[in-house]
Amino acid sequence: MSTTHSEEPVYDLAQLGHAELLTPVYEDSLRFFVDVYGLDLVAEEGGSAYLRGWGDTELTTLKLTPAARAGLGHVGWRAVSAQALDRRVAALREAGLDGDWIDGDVGHGKAFRFRAPSGQLMEIYYESEKYRPTGEKRPYLPNQPQAEIHRGVGAQRIDHLNILAPDVPETRDVMARALGFKLREYLVPPGQGEVGAWMSLMNKAHDLAITRESAPTSGRLHHLAYAVENREDVLRAADTFSQLGRPIEFGPAKHSRTQGFFLYVIEPGGNRIEVFSGGIHIYAPDWEAVRWTTEAGGRSTAWGLDVPPSFHAHATPVLD
Amino acid sequence: MSTTHSEEPVYDLAQLGHAELLTPVYEDSLRFFVDVYGLDLVAEEGGSAYLRGWGDTELTTLKLTPAARAGLGHVGWRAVSAQALDRRVAALREAGLDGDWIDGDVGHGKAFRFRAPSGQLMEIYYESEKYRPTGEKRPYLPNQPQAEIHRGVGAQRIDHLNILAPDVPETRDVMARALGFKLREYLVPPGQGEVGAWMSLMNKAHDLAITRESAPTSGRLHHLAYAVENREDVLRAADTFSQLGRPIEFGPAKHSRTQGFFLYVIEPGGNRIEVFSGGIHIYAPDWEAVRWTTEAGGRSTAWGLDVPPSFHAHATPVLD
Amino acid sequence: MSTTHSEEPVYDLAQLGHAELLTPVYEDSLRFFVDVYGLDLVAEEGGSAYLRGWGDTELTTLKLTPAARAGLGHVGWRAVSAQALDRRVAALREAGLDGDWIDGDVGHGKAFRFRAPSGQLMEIYYESEKYRPTGEKRPYLPNQPQAEIHRGVGAQRIDHLNILAPDVPETRDVMARALGFKLREYLVPPGQGEVGAWMSLMNKAHDLAITRESAPTSGRLHHLAYAVENREDVLRAADTFSQLGRPIEFGPAKHSRTQGFFLYVIEPGGNRIEVFSGGIHIYAPDWEAVRWTTEAGGRSTAWGLDVPPSFHAHATPVLD
Amino acid sequence: MSTTHSEEPVYDLAQLGHAELLTPVYEDSLRFFVDVYGLDLVAEEGGSAYLRGWGDTELTTLKLTPAARAGLGHVGWRAVSAQALDRRVAALREAGLDGDWIDGDVGHGKAFRFRAPSGQLMEIYYESEKYRPTGEKRPYLPNQPQAEIHRGVGAQRIDHLNILAPDVPETRDVMARALGFKLREYLVPPGQGEVGAWMSLMNKAHDLAITRESAPTSGRLHHLAYAVENREDVLRAADTFSQLGRPIEFGPAKHSRTQGFFLYVIEPGGNRIEVFSGGIHIYAPDWEAVRWTTEAGGRSTAWGLDVPPSFHAHATPVLD
Repeated sequence: MSTTHSEEPVYDLAQLGHAELLTPVYEDSLRFFVDVYGLDLVAEEGGSAYLRGWGDTELTTLKLTPAARAGLGHVGWRAVSAQALDRRVAALREAGLDGDWIDGDVGHGKAFRFRAPSGQLMEIYYESEKYRPTGEKRPYLPNQPQAEIHRGVGAQRIDHLNILAPDVPETRDVMARALGFKLREYLVPPGQGEVGAWMSLMNKAHDLAITRESAPTSGRLHHLAYAVENREDVLRAADTFSQLGRPIEFGPAKHSRTQGFFLYVIEPGGNRIEVFSGGIHIYAPDWEAVRWTTEAGGRSTAWGLDVPPSFHAHATPVLD
Repeated sequence: MSTTHSEEPVYDLAQLGHAELLTPVYEDSLRFFVDVYGLDLVAEEGGSAYLRGWGDTELTTLKLTPAARAGLGHVGWRAVSAQALDRRVAALREAGLDGDWIDGDVGHGKAFRFRAPSGQLMEIYYESEKYRPTGEKRPYLPNQPQAEIHRGVGAQRIDHLNILAPDVPETRDVMARALGFKLREYLVPPGQGEVGAWMSLMNKAHDLAITRESAPTSGRLHHLAYAVENREDVLRAADTFSQLGRPIEFGPAKHSRTQGFFLYVIEPGGNRIEVFSGGIHIYAPDWEAVRWTTEAGGRSTAWGLDVPPSFHAHATPVLD
Repeated sequence: MSTTHSEEPVYDLAQLGHAELLTPVYEDSLRFFVDVYGLDLVAEEGGSAYLRGWGDTELTTLKLTPAARAGLGHVGWRAVSAQALDRRVAALREAGLDGDWIDGDVGHGKAFRFRAPSGQLMEIYYESEKYRPTGEKRPYLPNQPQAEIHRGVGAQRIDHLNILAPDVPETRDVMARALGFKLREYLVPPGQGEVGAWMSLMNKAHDLAITRESAPTSGRLHHLAYAVENREDVLRAADTFSQLGRPIEFGPAKHSRTQGFFLYVIEPGGNRIEVFSGGIHIYAPDWEAVRWTTEAGGRSTAWGLDVPPSFHAHATPVLD
Repeated sequence: MSTTHSEEPVYDLAQLGHAELLTPVYEDSLRFFVDVYGLDLVAEEGGSAYLRGWGDTELTTLKLTPAARAGLGHVGWRAVSAQALDRRVAALREAGLDGDWIDGDVGHGKAFRFRAPSGQLMEIYYESEKYRPTGEKRPYLPNQPQAEIHRGVGAQRIDHLNILAPDVPETRDVMARALGFKLREYLVPPGQGEVGAWMSLMNKAHDLAITRESAPTSGRLHHLAYAVENREDVLRAADTFSQLGRPIEFGPAKHSRTQGFFLYVIEPGGNRIEVFSGGIHIYAPDWEAVRWTTEAGGRSTAWGLDVPPSFHAHATPVLD
């Protein structure tokens, strides 16, 4: 009956800490994230805006930076301890992914920066600043980080990131070996090789999705997702986006992988943003990665619905 | 800004693996768990029934055993690896909680059994048997362990346990030090000392709740909870229990601690059973345990609703 | 098989048009209805405030008037046509309920005012003013009367009224004969006579509930209800009231009668206000009124939950 | 301020009583409606099956009849009284729509049959048989017609019908004048004339939708809809259809017109079947029909989602 693992699972990273998005229309993007998506602006420093969802425990989870083209500035993964951080830096170097220490940024301390095989800039860190609500930001329940925001969609907390990779197995292998990401599901359509991998750090269905880059480029972002509490909140988000004149690209519907309930919009700068809820939780320490083969590439929903072509074609930076 | 921890968090236990409930009316309890609560009967062996929820990855998560009185037979926590199991056994012994190895049971291999300071029998183990669905038990999505059960409440997967302890801090301290449970919230009403502690292993708000035993006894169970996917499922469970003539003791409502959505019923044997959904998820590795003080002992709901007296008075075994 | 009716059902009244609430703390009540309950203030005239829910088609559905004591000022029922109004005035007079024509009020034209046998002031009218949204009040869907309000609870539209009557059958008989209210359900606990009647005009489970006045008085209000779209909105309202520090008296839960999903709060002036959703819809023209007998007086919920004593004791005006 | 109507609204028809569907694969269709859609089989007589939803008050609301081709056999509208029935028969004749009396069918008495200008066979009737539950069909609440069905989708009650008409205004004009259907919304895309009309009898957003037949034929059915209680039930229906291997054509999503929450499947015989929930309720007796013009023909959802081409192309009978 027993299952034997020669190798122990690693729990050195705790969470997706923050992401930096680049936008060619900084003011419009900022208005979108504050007024429509419902984040709070925590600081503006060095030309960037730092935002947070009302359910985030970190001070800031989104950095918004003006740039010539939309895309992912970098993504930050938080370690469970200072020692764990050191272990992961060593593991990264062992995996041949060297990088540099930076001093820190608004909301967190020193971080080790490296580039994933798929080209995205990443960092790992431990020291960070907690959000301390004051005044009307104080929640009515002490186990909430902040009073609930009812502005726009009211996105609650950062949830996951989907990056594109020319070689999916190569990138997910490094993320697994060096950082302890666990492979939860992967998609291998007949004759296409592995086109998608969904990985998580602890109990989530995914903190990181890696899907295949089909263009001759690298380092691109497919989407960044914040979570809301119930799928009813996703349905209300659909109403809110419609009321506020922001077109929905895809959803609301239920993903096949992760079983999350979702919808996608494109923020003014061009980056794809998800409103996500639910999804399976994974408690088995020896979860066997689920191999999806029967569905052809386009099937992304549990209900078999059609996927709009843009969902597979659009990523940031947009190619010239 | 930084936070410094001298001690690293321990992630050696993965999940609440299973619980054993004792019942003086075995047949009635079994019918309740299968027909009303919606679990599947996996095996009957040695006089006990072994059941599972359709969302459980383990073969069995509930063992039902005939006994003179209702109560908790034992509870099993699953380690993340064989090595982690050994480390926790050593830590238990170091904490002065000695125990014995047993060979295993239906669904899992060798386990180390010990008694918590609060008197409940517990075990930790790693080797376990995965459920392999066949025939009509096969799910339509490969990332579900089993086809969804629509019988009765359709309880999805084991979620958490609430035990009573004469000395709450003593028990939660051992669970923290020896097993790596993290304290998430605790309740200290004015002048009463700590009357409740909510602890979890990884991202959940709680895998284990410990509340104060006010009777001169020990080892009692307050409730066992299975989760459902949405709070709408809890509302439907209320309809289902009512349709099937099973009185609801408390709920549906929203907990203050954990923010879970809940309802409670008493199974025919007398044990309190919860249908639970949602609740906060904890991703910060340095989560600061939330101290609840302003609410007097009786306030268990986020909406300030009255708690029925039985909720504080009833536990199993019932005292003579 | 057939059913034969000698008498035809009457469809001369269309809807609960508006209600007037009296409050001893006008400013506080107004702030509650605008900021917490989420209505819009349409006009202040003659010392009264006129408000509307974002889903109301009438210009105003709530009139708030300063008074020495809380209570119901009057309630207005809208006829389906000018001719129907005349028919109902004749029927009221035939039933011995004389009254007087008034010229109208903000939002509606001439109305015939009379006093129900249970003492509440009522009026029937036809001519009324539609709400015409402009600017940011314009909805994104042309079949919504107004852009959705996300402030506070965001109560959507006026739904029903519960009055107290010393003699329930007497009042409901007049409402049926003179105005065409259809009896949908009634409650006759053993040995108590008829203590409640639920009546509606067309497809709703109730536009008017009449429950027994147990004090030596008349003309009192039990509660006024606005509807929200889904029961999820009632759950969210529970959060909102809690966040805004407004205690919930009863609910969220599911009514036995009407099967509506509900919660109750007391507005600052003392009147009980409901947030209501769902409930059965009645399409059979020969619906047989449902006689409830098995449940004792206190059972108001479909799930058998306890009713707080205040729910049966409190009404407005409060007795000295 | 006032509104003046020279003509009074007519409330002589109460409800969509039943529909008859034709199917070339009777056994498969019957299995679908019982096992997947969740209706109960009430009788099999004269080669047809008679079914009901658990929330229907009529004995039977769906007649399933073997035929060479799928399509609508007939649709039955129930009058509010015997006198109202006679008035409507006279009005039909006055409108030039003659017909014949039939003796009745399982579940209802004599009916007047006529053909709508758009070619569908319709009947109006009053005498009907109520469903009387016995044994385990008895509901736990006396205001439910039957114990809730948890089999398959558990469709609750018949809701509405969408027919195709070569000339939409002609058909809706007759339905209004002769039968008292009220026009609630209509769609007039630029340069296309009126391509859709949504009409109802009392408080619903629609009992009957009429959309343009673009093929050189008449008498076709676009879809038949049963309602479920919450939009969560529609989401669960999507899971259920997927689990049972029945493809979803369109939805779950939210309609623009009616604002109902929906999904569509094609039953084995080829008829399109909807699972519907919610939608606006109309209480104003002088509701002004909403003219939709800004959206081009294909926009059927409130969220601007794409409509699958089959939704506009497929109807029954399918053309050769």
